[in-house]
Amino acid sequence: MPDRERIEARLQALWEIALGPGGGADRPAFSAAEAQAMLLVAGWAREVGLEPGIDEFGNLWALPAGSDRVATSGSHVDTVPDGGRYDGALGTVLGLELAQEIGSGLLVCAAEEAPRFGAGTVGSRLLVGMLPVSALETLVDASGTTAAQARDEYLEALAELPRVRPATERVRVHAEIHVAQRRALRELGIVTRVASPRRLRVTIAGRAGHSGEVAMSERHDALAAAAELILAVESAARAEPPQTVATVGTIEIAPGAISVIPGRARLGIDARGISGQSLARLDAAIRADAAAIATRRAVDVGVELVRAGEPVELDRVLADAALHAAEARGIAATETWSGSGHDAQHLAALFGTLLVFVPLEGGESHTPDEGADAADIEHASLVVNDVLSVVSRSN
Amino acid sequence: MPDRERIEARLQALWEIALGPGGGADRPAFSAAEAQAMLLVAGWAREVGLEPGIDEFGNLWALPAGSDRVATSGSHVDTVPDGGRYDGALGTVLGLELAQEIGSGLLVCAAEEAPRFGAGTVGSRLLVGMLPVSALETLVDASGTTAAQARDEYLEALAELPRVRPATERVRVHAEIHVAQRRALRELGIVTRVASPRRLRVTIAGRAGHSGEVAMSERHDALAAAAELILAVESAARAEPPQTVATVGTIEIAPGAISVIPGRARLGIDARGISGQSLARLDAAIRADAAAIATRRAVDVGVELVRAGEPVELDRVLADAALHAAEARGIAATETWSGSGHDAQHLAALFGTLLVFVPLEGGESHTPDEGADAADIEHASLVVNDVLSVVSRSN
Repeated sequence: MPDRERIEARLQALWEIALGPGGGADRPAFSAAEAQAMLLVAGWAREVGLEPGIDEFGNLWALPAGSDRVATSGSHVDTVPDGGRYDGALGTVLGLELAQEIGSGLLVCAAEEAPRFGAGTVGSRLLVGMLPVSALETLVDASGTTAAQARDEYLEALAELPRVRPATERVRVHAEIHVAQRRALRELGIVTRVASPRRLRVTIAGRAGHSGEVAMSERHDALAAAAELILAVESAARAEPPQTVATVGTIEIAPGAISVIPGRARLGIDARGISGQSLARLDAAIRADAAAIATRRAVDVGVELVRAGEPVELDRVLADAALHAAEARGIAATETWSGSGHDAQHLAALFGTLLVFVPLEGGESHTPDEGADAADIEHASLVVNDVLSVVSRSN
Repeated sequence: MPDRERIEARLQALWEIALGPGGGADRPAFSAAEAQAMLLVAGWAREVGLEPGIDEFGNLWALPAGSDRVATSGSHVDTVPDGGRYDGALGTVLGLELAQEIGSGLLVCAAEEAPRFGAGTVGSRLLVGMLPVSALETLVDASGTTAAQARDEYLEALAELPRVRPATERVRVHAEIHVAQRRALRELGIVTRVASPRRLRVTIAGRAGHSGEVAMSERHDALAAAAELILAVESAARAEPPQTVATVGTIEIAPGAISVIPGRARLGIDARGISGQSLARLDAAIRADAAAIATRRAVDVGVELVRAGEPVELDRVLADAALHAAEARGIAATETWSGSGHDAQHLAALFGTLLVFVPLEGGESHTPDEGADAADIEHASLVVNDVLSVVSRSN
């Protein structure tokens, strides 16, 4: 049985490393606080007989001695600014419980939350080769520090841990427990599909002009064109299944003065779904709407794909085993999807992965108020324990 | 007859005072460059027998000696960043020609172009009492300098000129010649109505959320609501007469991250028209649309009036006199309106004012390419000469 008090004490220890101005956990990607959290976890891993080490990407590997293939578990220990108590930390702490109970290994990926660098799941994507190491040179935070510099300082802060080669060949399967980020999920979620964000950048060039001296009929207002496209994106997403969503999350206009008709606008669109066909339809609808708006308003509209996220399917056998384990224990669980990215979806390129969501209680995800119920946490741990135990026995 | 060569030489001298990075005139409100331009103009005024002095607001008064009531003319000498050769400078230089020909006085208002402080027609509004002097303390430029500090430094730079009391009681009528800012005007424009900008600030509060984890049907997206309102503003203005226009020139959203549904949005609306009824209908339509959007999307929408501009009617007798003078000389001229603000519309609170537009040739207004035709300039000067001569004779 997972130890509720130990879990709580470890979550508290990670929480206390660094708090942001809003009172939430503040352990940015490749920061001293993330390194400190990794050191704490490495120490706990040693206590249960694991051998911790850091790979060149910053990920923590803590496997049992020897060369046997093992199941691993874990999540991440970095956070968004003013993040919650459970995001990442929960799956990491539960990985230690599983290690103690069934001798599994621990894999904690670095820099999962990387809004600092406008990125995410950096450690796992570096590990599987989806993100080239050279990309770290071009990711820059607000203070001008590159992700490469930050990673180097982070590795320096972890110098007391052995530098290890990624032991991917020893991993039979990997399980990640994570607090859910969708409030609608009210029971244990066994994730079978993960939506990757597909990102479009839209650039609209109209014609700037004096707000008092150009008749409405003669305008080529870039912001009005952008407004039509924002609503078109919303309509296109509404026409798709509920798992498909699209968001215009950024907008910049120029010149952006109260007395000048906007001449240029730029939008950032984030589209996600667990169906590749649905995403493709959405993408086509947005482009068709953009072209129609461009023609109707005589403005230039450019649509550029900046990140071609495709939905990822997780291991069906592991998911079914988790659903059966929950049923056998009388734990309410449902097959579900994730609209947000997780390390497990990238690690799936290397070995079978299981992703289990603990329902979100109380506050929102990515806020200091993010909550999770102790009983739900225990249930998630028991289900993953059952699945990994079976895998271990089938060795 | 106005002296083409002298006009051109003086425009060139003003132009050369300071050039911006884009190659345009760069004489910001209450800057050293504006002061330098005022000194140049004061020197030219002395050459034609006027007595130049600066009032406490920074306006240049150059009247004939004595206490007789006179007609005045003039415009302004400050510019927008990278502004044109004619905006403000033309009416000022032509005021000197008129002084030479008919003995009129010169009134050049300070800080007419004040995007530096997010304002405009500062000197004339201070003069007529529409803008309280205390407001200069709260207008701040990008470097943190208040308009009050800038005005003090500007007055210091003009210390060699006598400080004078505004001689409003000596002004019989005032004429301002200005380059047109509406390309559609293709002949001399005799302005009878000026649209003041009416400004609304709209604040929308929806609900932020993870772009991948909130279904479309559960969103309260502040940017999507803003997009509807932007299009509603456009539609409402299109439904009004062509002289009524409305522009959403600014938009800010929060948090403004690609993976977060916008929770808040703020829009700046600039509405202008020469009919108070039309503006009132437009205002009501925008507010009704905002309320409907708020209800439909379950978001909060606040609409705040931040500047209640009402259209201004200029002196009908002076305008008719100008139209007749043009006709008598065979100069093509038309009654027109101004969608942009001018000192003449504020000075109209003190004495009758005539505002005459010289057609814009070539580049756009407020750009280095702004152009005006020498023949049109001469025509404007002749027409104003005729009107002011009549006024002078009727003394």
